[in-house]
Amino acid sequence: MPRVYNFSAGPATLPLEVLQKAQKELVDYHGTGMSVMEMSHRSPEYLEIFNGAKDKLKSLMSVPDNYEILFLHGGASSQFAMVPLNLFSKSKKADYINTGAWSKKAIVEAKRYGTVNVVASSDDKTFSYIPDVTSNMFDTEADYVHITSNNTIYGTTFPELPPVGNVPLVADMSSNILAQVYNVNDFGLIYAGAQKNIGPAGVAIVIIKKDLAGKALGITPNMFNYQTHIDNGSMFNTPPTFAIYMAGLVFEWLLEKGGVAAMQKINEEKAGWLYDFLDNSSMFSGTADVASRSTMNVPFVTTSEEMDAKFIKEAAAIGLKTLKGHRSVGGMRASIYNAMPPEGVKALVDFMKAFELNNK
Amino acid sequence: MPRVYNFSAGPATLPLEVLQKAQKELVDYHGTGMSVMEMSHRSPEYLEIFNGAKDKLKSLMSVPDNYEILFLHGGASSQFAMVPLNLFSKSKKADYINTGAWSKKAIVEAKRYGTVNVVASSDDKTFSYIPDVTSNMFDTEADYVHITSNNTIYGTTFPELPPVGNVPLVADMSSNILAQVYNVNDFGLIYAGAQKNIGPAGVAIVIIKKDLAGKALGITPNMFNYQTHIDNGSMFNTPPTFAIYMAGLVFEWLLEKGGVAAMQKINEEKAGWLYDFLDNSSMFSGTADVASRSTMNVPFVTTSEEMDAKFIKEAAAIGLKTLKGHRSVGGMRASIYNAMPPEGVKALVDFMKAFELNNK
Repeated sequence: MPRVYNFSAGPATLPLEVLQKAQKELVDYHGTGMSVMEMSHRSPEYLEIFNGAKDKLKSLMSVPDNYEILFLHGGASSQFAMVPLNLFSKSKKADYINTGAWSKKAIVEAKRYGTVNVVASSDDKTFSYIPDVTSNMFDTEADYVHITSNNTIYGTTFPELPPVGNVPLVADMSSNILAQVYNVNDFGLIYAGAQKNIGPAGVAIVIIKKDLAGKALGITPNMFNYQTHIDNGSMFNTPPTFAIYMAGLVFEWLLEKGGVAAMQKINEEKAGWLYDFLDNSSMFSGTADVASRSTMNVPFVTTSEEMDAKFIKEAAAIGLKTLKGHRSVGGMRASIYNAMPPEGVKALVDFMKAFELNNK
Repeated sequence: MPRVYNFSAGPATLPLEVLQKAQKELVDYHGTGMSVMEMSHRSPEYLEIFNGAKDKLKSLMSVPDNYEILFLHGGASSQFAMVPLNLFSKSKKADYINTGAWSKKAIVEAKRYGTVNVVASSDDKTFSYIPDVTSNMFDTEADYVHITSNNTIYGTTFPELPPVGNVPLVADMSSNILAQVYNVNDFGLIYAGAQKNIGPAGVAIVIIKKDLAGKALGITPNMFNYQTHIDNGSMFNTPPTFAIYMAGLVFEWLLEKGGVAAMQKINEEKAGWLYDFLDNSSMFSGTADVASRSTMNVPFVTTSEEMDAKFIKEAAAIGLKTLKGHRSVGGMRASIYNAMPPEGVKALVDFMKAFELNNK
């Protein structure tokens, strides 16, 4: 099959140009006579790749100098425990906003190490919306507030950041990092698994305000201690070198495309085509609350489960792949991260139109 | 530069055939229209890759059915903490044999969660030997005994396994897994970072006797709990999918080469050429004790630091790369894992001979 449009929620589609570049230099990187995968992480050649990736991310997100960028093992799921193990430094209390399955997993881990206050939740309606919060709902003594900025399964995004005052805001940004403009200064810590908007699975990005590190609980494994990784430039142990190289190629591609603001514009356009169609269709409808809609993940349903199954099957046959929704929501989900070309979304909308006509 | 012989201790050289295969299928895996990196870890295509890798490893190491094979994030360094967090289930005491920098790091982590008894150490002679141990030195009430089967930095390997009786033996096998035949039944748990004998950095292999899991300390993060990963088939979160795919290609290559016993024979031959030369040279000498010598990592020195530097520089110029020794030992180190072709070792020995002649 020629190249498909892959709407997977993650691991997800990557820019074709990036894959082609990686393919070209896979066996012999820039005439070194070896693959990036074979390089010592402390060699000058690899350090250039590593520092290049870090510098590009710093530039893309305008990361201030009082923040450290870390490339870590373990995915976002390890962060669910690392955040409380490191940030429960004073009151050992934290406020969480529960907007889905990943928030819930983060809450489970935090409860092991301190007191979790769930400030608001959208569990009552299958997490189809982002709950309203006001500043008086937050505990001014909390060590941090935790949000999931974009909820991959339910297709919701915080329309604005919660008013947390002086308490550090921690965001799991796995599914919308680099897809819309955020001001890093608004956060104490940002983390993201790579496999949606950054690169292959196996590396997580952490952007941490340096003064939050160095206060981990005594039971914290070294590998879960941010200060360890800050002190060792993410090389306390061998980092996932190839995944970081791939992330660097994606960062380069993003810079060539005009950076995060330019991507945000394209993402809004892409999502707009889908939502416009969904809002006007008599067969298809979106499942997320309009005010909370994500530009990254668009869950939708037809009029019946049978029709959903027929749609997914026929879409796959023409190269529109991985459209099945998460089992907790059902129906379909189109994940349209940075790397999904506009043509892919257009092809999907065109197919939805045709499918609706043919199945009246 | 054409393909070099890369003697890096890790990340290390990979079989050229494996890299070429990965390159060929990088953009479009087997006509799926997408890269392995882009596949959902729960897709049938990826599950076939994942299960294939697991089956091949099971076959290569004859892993019995009462053991589970896990592919985890975090490298061997995470295992330094995971082992005590999971295995301190009764006496919370463990016996460690200290044979180098990695053993030391493992001890640091274990001390955080229980009582560590260092049964024997070779710290007195820069870890240049494996200390003798007898059965009466071990605590019969210990929850486990921990060894580093091969010591990458110092070039030593346990000539035989310590007599631990009924206490589960845990081995950090990062630098000699799949390079010599071990009986998995002799171990309670084996772990290994991939980046020496398995594949790219970013995945660790754990082979655990199932009845040892399920007893983790209450403070254990879910991502550090073996039972979590057993219950979820290594997919509690998104695994490092591409690194596992690469490991699978290496396993396939090993099977084609005749498996671990065949590799062990080649490895003994390869290391033999180097040690024979070192034992008969008047300029070069090996730094590890003869009885403890590793077939994987061969550290050696010339008569002076200046001569060492000259050797490393001239070797690199003719494509014999990454021969600088670890700073704690000095001199040179040739890491000659499974993927280092015999021709590479021959080229190194030939160059050493010529260098000795030219610098008399």
